[in-house]
Amino acid sequence: MQFELLATDGKARAGNLTTDHGMIETPIFMPVGTAGTVKGVHQRELKKDINPDIILGNTYHLYLRPQTEILKKAGGLHKFMNWDRSILTDSGGYQVYSLSENRKIREEGVKFKSHIDGSHHLFTPENVMEIQREIGADIIMAFDECTPYPCDYQYAKKSMEMTHRWLDRCIAHLEITPEVYNYKQSLFPIVQGSVYKDLRKRSAEYIASVNADGNAIGGLSVGEPAEEMYAMTEVVTEILPHHKPRYLMGVGTPINILECIALGIDMFDCVMPTRNARNGMLFTAHGSINMRNRKWRDDFSPIDEMGITWVDTEYSKAYLKHLFSVNEMLAKQIATIHNLGFYLWLVREARKHILAGDFLVWKEKMVKQMDKRL
Amino acid sequence: MQFELLATDGKARAGNLTTDHGMIETPIFMPVGTAGTVKGVHQRELKKDINPDIILGNTYHLYLRPQTEILKKAGGLHKFMNWDRSILTDSGGYQVYSLSENRKIREEGVKFKSHIDGSHHLFTPENVMEIQREIGADIIMAFDECTPYPCDYQYAKKSMEMTHRWLDRCIAHLEITPEVYNYKQSLFPIVQGSVYKDLRKRSAEYIASVNADGNAIGGLSVGEPAEEMYAMTEVVTEILPHHKPRYLMGVGTPINILECIALGIDMFDCVMPTRNARNGMLFTAHGSINMRNRKWRDDFSPIDEMGITWVDTEYSKAYLKHLFSVNEMLAKQIATIHNLGFYLWLVREARKHILAGDFLVWKEKMVKQMDKRL
Repeated sequence: MQFELLATDGKARAGNLTTDHGMIETPIFMPVGTAGTVKGVHQRELKKDINPDIILGNTYHLYLRPQTEILKKAGGLHKFMNWDRSILTDSGGYQVYSLSENRKIREEGVKFKSHIDGSHHLFTPENVMEIQREIGADIIMAFDECTPYPCDYQYAKKSMEMTHRWLDRCIAHLEITPEVYNYKQSLFPIVQGSVYKDLRKRSAEYIASVNADGNAIGGLSVGEPAEEMYAMTEVVTEILPHHKPRYLMGVGTPINILECIALGIDMFDCVMPTRNARNGMLFTAHGSINMRNRKWRDDFSPIDEMGITWVDTEYSKAYLKHLFSVNEMLAKQIATIHNLGFYLWLVREARKHILAGDFLVWKEKMVKQMDKRL
Repeated sequence: MQFELLATDGKARAGNLTTDHGMIETPIFMPVGTAGTVKGVHQRELKKDINPDIILGNTYHLYLRPQTEILKKAGGLHKFMNWDRSILTDSGGYQVYSLSENRKIREEGVKFKSHIDGSHHLFTPENVMEIQREIGADIIMAFDECTPYPCDYQYAKKSMEMTHRWLDRCIAHLEITPEVYNYKQSLFPIVQGSVYKDLRKRSAEYIASVNADGNAIGGLSVGEPAEEMYAMTEVVTEILPHHKPRYLMGVGTPINILECIALGIDMFDCVMPTRNARNGMLFTAHGSINMRNRKWRDDFSPIDEMGITWVDTEYSKAYLKHLFSVNEMLAKQIATIHNLGFYLWLVREARKHILAGDFLVWKEKMVKQMDKRL
């Protein structure tokens, strides 16, 4: 993996990250493809209409279904889902904490019951590395504990220390676990420490010291106020190495993304554009739209005059509102393409403005503009 | 509306039906777009990948939501859903009988309660013509009673006679109801008579006598054995005018369609390819596939080697099986495009073979081939 930093504008950065599946222009938003599909979007549309250089898969979901054995037989997730660009997989940790039942967190790892069939499983730093080898993402994540919010200081500290020990085990095990396919996989470690500056600082220093290809910040966007998220991100980005990509996990709203780009983040993922789309909420450059609102029922103007993706001008607000009212699949399909198209447009615009050196002015304008309900 | 009969092969026919929204090559299968959307398919995909010359909308659903007032404001259903080819709407009768509550059938019309909110409504031959004017389909259907199966002779006879009287009222009212948009709408009357040959004969004679632009056969594919359906279709097609298109409503399986083309039918519609797709059943030239079957889980071959639509070779059986297992939207989207693509391919092939004069041999081969479970 290569990371070339092309320009900085304040703390904001524009770079090119290259994996064996191609180049990723940063800052980047990675659409979430939980179970090997970005919900409601054909791979062809994802590539042509939304055009991200990388997408995300969830280890927890893929491990349970279709199961790693099937993915291995398929030749890895890229081939299984027919996606030839980069993929990042999380470590499964977050879903174990949020979805599974009866989870027991020990030094060894996490015992849990599947949310699907109640079957018993154990995730350890070691087997999660093996699972991610077999899934075959280009970027794989260290196994960590993502602490909830709020989280008391003592728990956050102990958890962070365990996450660091788990990281050592991930690195050690990855070294003795050969790649399954003919391309390189890069491990990103994860900074934890809840909302405590001293813990975040210590964690960032530890993570920086392992000299990974890229680094991630976890345990944010879990319910804390945005100001706390920004404060923690700022503490961490000042410590993480400048010449490595930085990934802020699970963030966020369009405004969160611009603010965190301003703090030096290069990579983002979040279910918000896709999940909110399915609930009828559209993000635009001029604010968010609740498509279920009755006022759109006879508004025959295009969904979004900006026309970032083809759906924006192909369909009217009245038509999309109707599709949501009658609970038609096409409603979710249209809204998902719109929202992902908008998120990708936003990070591409951010990159342009960083390269042009006027990012902060543009960001301030956009944050104001987007902070509305249409 | 123009109908040019290009060739016959036995009783099978190939023709060109022209409305103000373009030419329809017959025999044709019309995908069902109940509420102004073919479920799970973007208009762009429908046009480019499936490519039907005409689709169907349901008056009952559209009348309830988004409501005719909205469609009128939009400039009709074509504009509302952004579909510039032909549309046919049914009369709403069938859904009133199958979906609504507390329906009361009287000479005046049918009183019913909406299946959505329990609100009270009345459909009459007159107001159904007005509603279909405002929806704006190119082909509109007479208001009829679709008798259930089984249906006793006396009820079938009385119902058929009322359907004929309703037809007279439809015709009379349509004459005094101006077109709402700047294109012509053609009314198709409907032959009824349950599974009684003498009633079907009488009904077909009456329907033929009104000299409409095209004629339909209703009340079949409601649970009767296929042999009865074929027998009734045969009685009716011998009476209906040769130089007018014939539409067999709600039919059917790929085999039903080929058999009824052989009996002289030109137009079909059915929810089967779309509904079955959503349940994981795929139709192919070599039989049907239950995509939920465990045996596909590690079959990485293309969905359908024939590759009629792009999804067939873009995705593997194992991937599609996985998507159905985890209940992902994309499963339904892929299967719907596949099935509709296959149905349209089938009627286009039928047309080619009718034009070539070898339809019957080809039909026999296809019927044998498709009558399998893969």
